[in-house]
Amino acid sequence: MISAILLAAGESKRMGKPKQLMPWGKSTILVQAIDNLKSSTVDEIIVVLGYKAEEIAKTITTKPVKIAINPDYKQGMSTAIIAGLKLVSSQPQAVMLALGDQPLVDSQTINRLIDEFYNHDKGIVIPTYQGKRGHPVIFAIKYKPELLELKGDIGAREIIKNHPGDTLEVAVDSESVISDIDTRSDYQSQLG
Amino acid sequence: MISAILLAAGESKRMGKPKQLMPWGKSTILVQAIDNLKSSTVDEIIVVLGYKAEEIAKTITTKPVKIAINPDYKQGMSTAIIAGLKLVSSQPQAVMLALGDQPLVDSQTINRLIDEFYNHDKGIVIPTYQGKRGHPVIFAIKYKPELLELKGDIGAREIIKNHPGDTLEVAVDSESVISDIDTRSDYQSQLG
Repeated sequence: MISAILLAAGESKRMGKPKQLMPWGKSTILVQAIDNLKSSTVDEIIVVLGYKAEEIAKTITTKPVKIAINPDYKQGMSTAIIAGLKLVSSQPQAVMLALGDQPLVDSQTINRLIDEFYNHDKGIVIPTYQGKRGHPVIFAIKYKPELLELKGDIGAREIIKNHPGDTLEVAVDSESVISDIDTRSDYQSQLG
Repeated sequence: MISAILLAAGESKRMGKPKQLMPWGKSTILVQAIDNLKSSTVDEIIVVLGYKAEEIAKTITTKPVKIAINPDYKQGMSTAIIAGLKLVSSQPQAVMLALGDQPLVDSQTINRLIDEFYNHDKGIVIPTYQGKRGHPVIFAIKYKPELLELKGDIGAREIIKNHPGDTLEVAVDSESVISDIDTRSDYQSQLG
């Protein structure tokens, strides 16, 4: 394996302002350099900051991806939700339950749901398309105990049903939220 | 903050083969779903696997990005290299020293250097363009003690100079390896 050390601690004296923060495409010079390493075969990336380290560190928004292994997957979706919940960091405001077979749910749709969650006083946010409810679903963290009590192949729909007054339905433009890929024909049609 | 739990533990019974591994664009259905979450404003992503968990986990190659803070950045590049080396995981075969102000060094060029490192018995791999040496530079891990002894604003060039017989120069097609962004005019011209 190869560790990359990306040197970005300097003061940019000749530039007169921190180069690390200067725009580059949709990001910054430094984030582009990080992304190039991420796209390469290096196995680990260490970014060295110094000058304005805190300010620059905030722009490096690489998100931790944790893998939860659910040994009880044959017992249905509730066991997967619980396995995932165990890895949630101490205090999020909410958890979003998303489906691994919905690759067409894009970041815009995801962000729309998050915005609606923050902008309304509802504990559950669920997308709909032509009146049908779909995924991903956001649950305020207060629902964690109820989620942890799910059993068998009952997904979180049961919880939603029990809290109609705390549920916000968000009609979205994209059929993606109600589609999943269960069969070869689903796959072919969604692959486009 | 919002934690996303991506449910991908199922057996894909109706599909007849693991959906998580099915091709989607340049990756797989599951990796696309992960990438969509990464592009969104969720703060943490937890992927729940179950069926064929190990095989599927291997396809999720999100790389750790660590941030090293170099309090001694005013003392020059050697202090940044040393700060980065302290975070290197226990046993890489090599470290690559890359520059944060070279956003045009793309993953193809990086991979070319890594390939050359693995395919030759040389401890140092350095890119050249029109005969000029540039970055990123790969050092076999045996050079770690020498790197840790660097002082002041002396970069690793000194070490390279001391080991001509162990150095492989790789001529690359891209001027990017010898360019960096030190001035506003460098910035304007490279931004294209």
